[in-house]
Amino acid sequence: MTKLIHSMIRVLDPDLSIDFYKTALNLDVAQRFDFDGFSLIYLRNSENDFELELTHNHDQDEPYTHGSGYGHLAVCVDDLADVHRRVTAANLKPTEMKAMSYNGQPMARFFFLTDPDGYKIEFLERFGRFQ
Amino acid sequence: MTKLIHSMIRVLDPDLSIDFYKTALNLDVAQRFDFDGFSLIYLRNSENDFELELTHNHDQDEPYTHGSGYGHLAVCVDDLADVHRRVTAANLKPTEMKAMSYNGQPMARFFFLTDPDGYKIEFLERFGRFQ
Repeated sequence: MTKLIHSMIRVLDPDLSIDFYKTALNLDVAQRFDFDGFSLIYLRNSENDFELELTHNHDQDEPYTHGSGYGHLAVCVDDLADVHRRVTAANLKPTEMKAMSYNGQPMARFFFLTDPDGYKIEFLERFGRFQ
Repeated sequence: MTKLIHSMIRVLDPDLSIDFYKTALNLDVAQRFDFDGFSLIYLRNSENDFELELTHNHDQDEPYTHGSGYGHLAVCVDDLADVHRRVTAANLKPTEMKAMSYNGQPMARFFFLTDPDGYKIEFLERFGRFQ
């Protein structure tokens, strides 16, 4: 059976990315492979058996581009308002918190951050589908 | 603590996507929300507590575009050659299987598929980092 194990994004400055994902998502560097020309860096924490893979192409000096297709990586947290305050204080510029309902019932409370390369991260309060 | 819970991609034809992710990754529809103008569809299997979220914007009729930044979603499987034969037989056109080493040691055996919207999926044999 196939198991989802990671999502890969290309990043321009891995130190900035590692710092952002530690501060905002509490992900640590689990393992790092430095090849001739590129590095692969795996980020995770103990909450789930799924990793974010950063690819750093050493000769890349232009920002990576974003199409209209890929959306975001999502995380859940216990206390959304508290995390919103914390990332605001860390100057990570979250969007406003919003709520969404489905058939008249609460479905989600969320906000978004943007990482140093422009990838969107959705923060959802632990509830319903999102836990 | 933040927990990684899903990755979101926008898709043009959700039926094609649901069929592809069932055939290729053995993911099932866990839940579906149909709103006025868009649908959210959550795919998962029992192997990991992480989901693929499909967003279907009902009025979208142009293919979504892909930038240079986002890479792929990765899965691991027990027997890569067997899965490669199976997806080849299902006409899903995998890339050739390749192997990668690091500091002279085996690191990964893998191939790629492309989903109906052009997103890349990496299949890795369960080994080392990838399990």
